[in-house]
Amino acid sequence: MSRAYNFAAGPAALPEPVLRQAQAELLEWGDARASIAEISHRSPEFMRVAAEAEADLRRLLSIPDDYAVLFLAGGATTQQALVALNFAAPGQAADYVVSGHWGKVALKQVQAYVDANVAASGEADGFRDIPPASQWRLSKDAAYLHVTANETIHGVEFRPEWGALPETGDVPLFADFSSSIASEPLDVSKFGLVYAGAQKNLGPVGVTVVIVRRDLLERAGQPRADIFNYASHAKAGSMLNTPPSYNWYLAGLVFKWMLAEGGVVEFARRSAEKARLLYAAIDGSGGFYRNEVASNVRSRMNVPFFLQDDALTAAFLAEAKEAGLLALKGHRVLGGVRASIYNAMPVEGVRALAGFMHEFQQRRG
Amino acid sequence: MSRAYNFAAGPAALPEPVLRQAQAELLEWGDARASIAEISHRSPEFMRVAAEAEADLRRLLSIPDDYAVLFLAGGATTQQALVALNFAAPGQAADYVVSGHWGKVALKQVQAYVDANVAASGEADGFRDIPPASQWRLSKDAAYLHVTANETIHGVEFRPEWGALPETGDVPLFADFSSSIASEPLDVSKFGLVYAGAQKNLGPVGVTVVIVRRDLLERAGQPRADIFNYASHAKAGSMLNTPPSYNWYLAGLVFKWMLAEGGVVEFARRSAEKARLLYAAIDGSGGFYRNEVASNVRSRMNVPFFLQDDALTAAFLAEAKEAGLLALKGHRVLGGVRASIYNAMPVEGVRALAGFMHEFQQRRG
Repeated sequence: MSRAYNFAAGPAALPEPVLRQAQAELLEWGDARASIAEISHRSPEFMRVAAEAEADLRRLLSIPDDYAVLFLAGGATTQQALVALNFAAPGQAADYVVSGHWGKVALKQVQAYVDANVAASGEADGFRDIPPASQWRLSKDAAYLHVTANETIHGVEFRPEWGALPETGDVPLFADFSSSIASEPLDVSKFGLVYAGAQKNLGPVGVTVVIVRRDLLERAGQPRADIFNYASHAKAGSMLNTPPSYNWYLAGLVFKWMLAEGGVVEFARRSAEKARLLYAAIDGSGGFYRNEVASNVRSRMNVPFFLQDDALTAAFLAEAKEAGLLALKGHRVLGGVRASIYNAMPVEGVRALAGFMHEFQQRRG
Repeated sequence: MSRAYNFAAGPAALPEPVLRQAQAELLEWGDARASIAEISHRSPEFMRVAAEAEADLRRLLSIPDDYAVLFLAGGATTQQALVALNFAAPGQAADYVVSGHWGKVALKQVQAYVDANVAASGEADGFRDIPPASQWRLSKDAAYLHVTANETIHGVEFRPEWGALPETGDVPLFADFSSSIASEPLDVSKFGLVYAGAQKNLGPVGVTVVIVRRDLLERAGQPRADIFNYASHAKAGSMLNTPPSYNWYLAGLVFKWMLAEGGVVEFARRSAEKARLLYAAIDGSGGFYRNEVASNVRSRMNVPFFLQDDALTAAFLAEAKEAGLLALKGHRVLGGVRASIYNAMPVEGVRALAGFMHEFQQRRG
């Protein structure tokens, strides 16, 4: 067998050079005489790996010094709960813009902690669009405003074409960037907090990155366990307890790969090219394939689409797999087809998919 | 270079056959044409890996059917907070027996949630002993009683020589088994809940196993995020959100290795032999080496010891490393030396350490 193009939504494709390096050094890391997976997170060897990963991520995303960077266990959903516990007083208002499934999940996590206000939602429209910021009903004195930068299932992303995220003054803007971080330059200074499960654009499953403005760490938040306290994690350099060290190491390898490839400017170029190719294949199919998302918020990362004749979907997926195009089945929430085209997916992979789509249509259309 | 004997406390040594298998299939798992680290946790391939890991752990530990087994992100410290949130009403009494550093950490996590009662503590005695159960001051109507089966730092373990854990009637017994699980047969039915970070006896860092009696999942607990709800995790088969799938896979490989080696009966035999060798080397040194733990609660997993002349400790550690005996530095809380001798440490490794200790004493004593 050989490796195929993997369009999984997360866990997702990793850069092959990263996998090869991890493979080569899995039994012995440097001159440690042990695997990096076997050594203490407080050993000089791992401390170096950890510090380099943070420095590389700071360089990659131009993270200002007044932001802490945390590498934590638990996925993005855990952070969705922790932001309320850390930054809102009990029952304080918090604003949520719900632009898809993950925005709803974020909202669900905080019902016990805050007065959650849905400032805007695309649900009535099946999450095919994001209401314009001018229509958002923001609370007075909200603890924060939460948005989902890219919706992995619904394929909806805040894009420049949509407009700019609003200025929120003293209310910090929190954003779930799980499925689009590091796919283009990010102005971190616009956000109070950015979080991202790593298993999409940043590499391995099992570690989550939190980028948080340091002054926010002084907020009292709510009564909580120390392990739920971001300030404690920051003070301990993300080693309040044993971190997911092997996952952190793998993320560090991906950061180095991204920097070597040209950083986020280059990945923005590739992402735009991949998205252009794929949406062109859909839109140019005369309705055989269909993406329902408003053009100004179409995701560059996750492209859900449907076949005009849904009875053909199973054959499409099976034949795509035969052709070396994996994991294209749509999420159970939506059905249909979904192609996730994160940083580790080369342009050639998307070209191969577009070619297959065309060929399938010719045979079955 | 070559792999050495690694006495790290966690992350800790992994079985070499497990590392070799993981290495061989890191780029392509089975006929998936992708790494197991790259495929969806809901794919048929990973679902099989996950189900096998659970079945193997159930077999290894003879886990009764009326217990759920969860594979979760977040370390043991996160579970220490979650047990209070899930199983105690707000402010309800919960009893803690504190037999070392990790018992203190467990207690710290729940201050915001329960009326934490220290039923017994070895702290006044430097955690060199565990107070007998007859002296424990248990609350009436406690939500649960929490113990730490083995203290990784202080080297204190509940042993048959100490006596039996008390019958607690309707109050379920919760136990942190992070550093001793699967080192000997475990009567799960005595416990309401057992949890263990995997990075010691169970293998990889980044995943935690929770074994919980199903009827307890019906307790209301406290207002909390869904991601903090054990019942939700159980209902979702530990896939409420993206689990640390690669770590889960590695743990599964370790379970298969342990079963193939003879299971917990065999590891109990090896653990007893390793502990016997190491304590004999200490006790037979005429005071050159010193372990201060009461003999009836000495840990079979983590053996902290001190050199009579502490000025020699640095030389001991450096020369041990030269001799291929790694990660023997004591935890910063205690100083001195610590050898962690989990399941992946062969008897020969401990024999090599004992030989080195003898030889070092002859040169420097």
